[in-house]
Amino acid sequence: MRINGRAYRTIFLADEAGTVAVIDQTRLPFEFELRHLHRATDAAVAIRDMVVRGAPLIGVTAAYGLALAMRENPGDAMLRHAVKELAATRPTAVNLRWALARMESALRKVPPPQRFARAYQEAAALAEEDVAACEAIGRHGLHLIAALAKRKHEGVPVQVLTHCNAGWLACVDWGTALAPVYAAHEAGIPVHVWVDETRPRSQGSFLTAFELGAHGVPHTVIADNTGGHLMQHGRVDLCLVGSDRTTATGDVANKIGTYLKALAARDNGVPFYAALPTSTIDWSMSDGVGEIPIEERSVREVTYVRGRLGSGALADVEIVAPGSAVANPGFDVTPARLVTGIVTERGVAEASREGLLRLYPERKEDVR
Amino acid sequence: MRINGRAYRTIFLADEAGTVAVIDQTRLPFEFELRHLHRATDAAVAIRDMVVRGAPLIGVTAAYGLALAMRENPGDAMLRHAVKELAATRPTAVNLRWALARMESALRKVPPPQRFARAYQEAAALAEEDVAACEAIGRHGLHLIAALAKRKHEGVPVQVLTHCNAGWLACVDWGTALAPVYAAHEAGIPVHVWVDETRPRSQGSFLTAFELGAHGVPHTVIADNTGGHLMQHGRVDLCLVGSDRTTATGDVANKIGTYLKALAARDNGVPFYAALPTSTIDWSMSDGVGEIPIEERSVREVTYVRGRLGSGALADVEIVAPGSAVANPGFDVTPARLVTGIVTERGVAEASREGLLRLYPERKEDVR
Repeated sequence: MRINGRAYRTIFLADEAGTVAVIDQTRLPFEFELRHLHRATDAAVAIRDMVVRGAPLIGVTAAYGLALAMRENPGDAMLRHAVKELAATRPTAVNLRWALARMESALRKVPPPQRFARAYQEAAALAEEDVAACEAIGRHGLHLIAALAKRKHEGVPVQVLTHCNAGWLACVDWGTALAPVYAAHEAGIPVHVWVDETRPRSQGSFLTAFELGAHGVPHTVIADNTGGHLMQHGRVDLCLVGSDRTTATGDVANKIGTYLKALAARDNGVPFYAALPTSTIDWSMSDGVGEIPIEERSVREVTYVRGRLGSGALADVEIVAPGSAVANPGFDVTPARLVTGIVTERGVAEASREGLLRLYPERKEDVR
Repeated sequence: MRINGRAYRTIFLADEAGTVAVIDQTRLPFEFELRHLHRATDAAVAIRDMVVRGAPLIGVTAAYGLALAMRENPGDAMLRHAVKELAATRPTAVNLRWALARMESALRKVPPPQRFARAYQEAAALAEEDVAACEAIGRHGLHLIAALAKRKHEGVPVQVLTHCNAGWLACVDWGTALAPVYAAHEAGIPVHVWVDETRPRSQGSFLTAFELGAHGVPHTVIADNTGGHLMQHGRVDLCLVGSDRTTATGDVANKIGTYLKALAARDNGVPFYAALPTSTIDWSMSDGVGEIPIEERSVREVTYVRGRLGSGALADVEIVAPGSAVANPGFDVTPARLVTGIVTERGVAEASREGLLRLYPERKEDVR
């Protein structure tokens, strides 16, 4: 997607020698800076410090981290060490471990002298696959937006509400929930996005607002409290969110607060879709609220917020009464009964066991 | 209620000469400071700059503002001028105008030499009436909490979720939504409050958390996104909120985001009550979503937050991507069908025309 008219990906090669460049997401939306990764350790630090975030991007960054390790030294000891170092950065990120396992398996099959080339090839394949999946999600989701646009007067934008950041900054390009929005925008369909701030980490007002603005997509930031009121007054046509894990029955785990928007969508007849890559479907689970473990995150995410001072400097300020207890569950689960449909790179499915199996017939055996 | 073991009201006489003291709420929760009001203009500035806020407290502060004016000069010109000055501070506050009208009418009935005494007497009566109403709300609401406590094991707290600040800091003492919580706490019933942060103005994490903590009531601050997840997991027994305006049919306008919590309460079988003084019932309205005007507030409330720096100084920091549009409706309406009941100083009513008229039979003529 574009930033100030120039096309970017969140991760790309900075030079012919294989140095990797990423967008420093800790400084967004106030500063746009690239960070160059020269060694595997640089990639590990970038993941750990959330210079890069979002499951797909973390996976691809770890893959390139291994490529950087092979550039330093293609021996077995380095391979082992780098896998361990990169895996330790974000203990709960499933995608990270999956990407590292795939890379390690590919690299072990070739002798050290071939590993440098093989590693860059495999990391690039991973990145391209992610872009292709997101682009396909965008293509399928575009039909939903196009259908809503047809019911409107010419030029009146389709109003999409999204929560958190499931945009291209979380992936390599396009994004998941935002891919259909970009696809519609590129297709000339007028679209406007209500962006939930998404406390406590403000991924909406920081990242989603930044990426939509930089690409030129009309949008408005709102407090997380606001979406229900907008839906009551007919100002939202479609809710579109991402997912961190989806059960075989269509229950959708996503950033905390998603469930509240799904309730408001149901109460007001607004369609509610989750857009996600196939890799986030957990075919072993059938009861999202009961089974999906919800990470309890640091209270500091609630008690402090990073913002820009009048001087232009960034600062963390305390925003909760000192001494008060704080709870910070990171995700919630939206039951399938509130989900109109699930968009994946394969197409749009009903949020049910039957709906998902129609899109993934090969999974029949895996599902209880 | 207590702050560090000492009983306070939000407004009280600082000396025998009639100087008025208020708690400076712009510095809470980080600094506790009293502000002395010597002249009517001081009261006007305190209201305008939100040193005091909350409909009941604004009304009482305006009343004492007129008393201060009469202390300066009890003539008609001063009375006229002070009413005008105080009324202009918060253009949409209904309570402010009501309190000023009552004061002015009482003062016009007596000759200037008696106005000083009469003004302090009337302002004190207004304050005492507010305290009595809040205390009665607490008494009625206490029964709800006591009934829930009976279903629990001895010593296991009743879990109350509240949104925004409808506590004693918004009134003179006790509060509205929090009055039953304080009553339960005083009665020795274990109670724990989930405090919604309440973006964009953070009244929950700033004021509700401060006043509960200062009085010694166990509580936990959460992001506004969190309540639905807690209710899904059986961790909330009761939602208790205030109201800025309630229709004759029981639709409840309150701080933006209240509706989302009511939806989650309904979805999870959690009782949802609004606690409010009779004065906030608008007998002329029957369709809250359609009829209650919703104030669109300054975007700066969303784009900036006040917090405490590491140095201890307070600072406003920018927390939204620069250039993004922002919307900031201040309130939403929870339809009566989602409201289990309405607690007023008269008792607990069903959220319906019939329920409210049973509590207010004298209003039969007013209701369409």
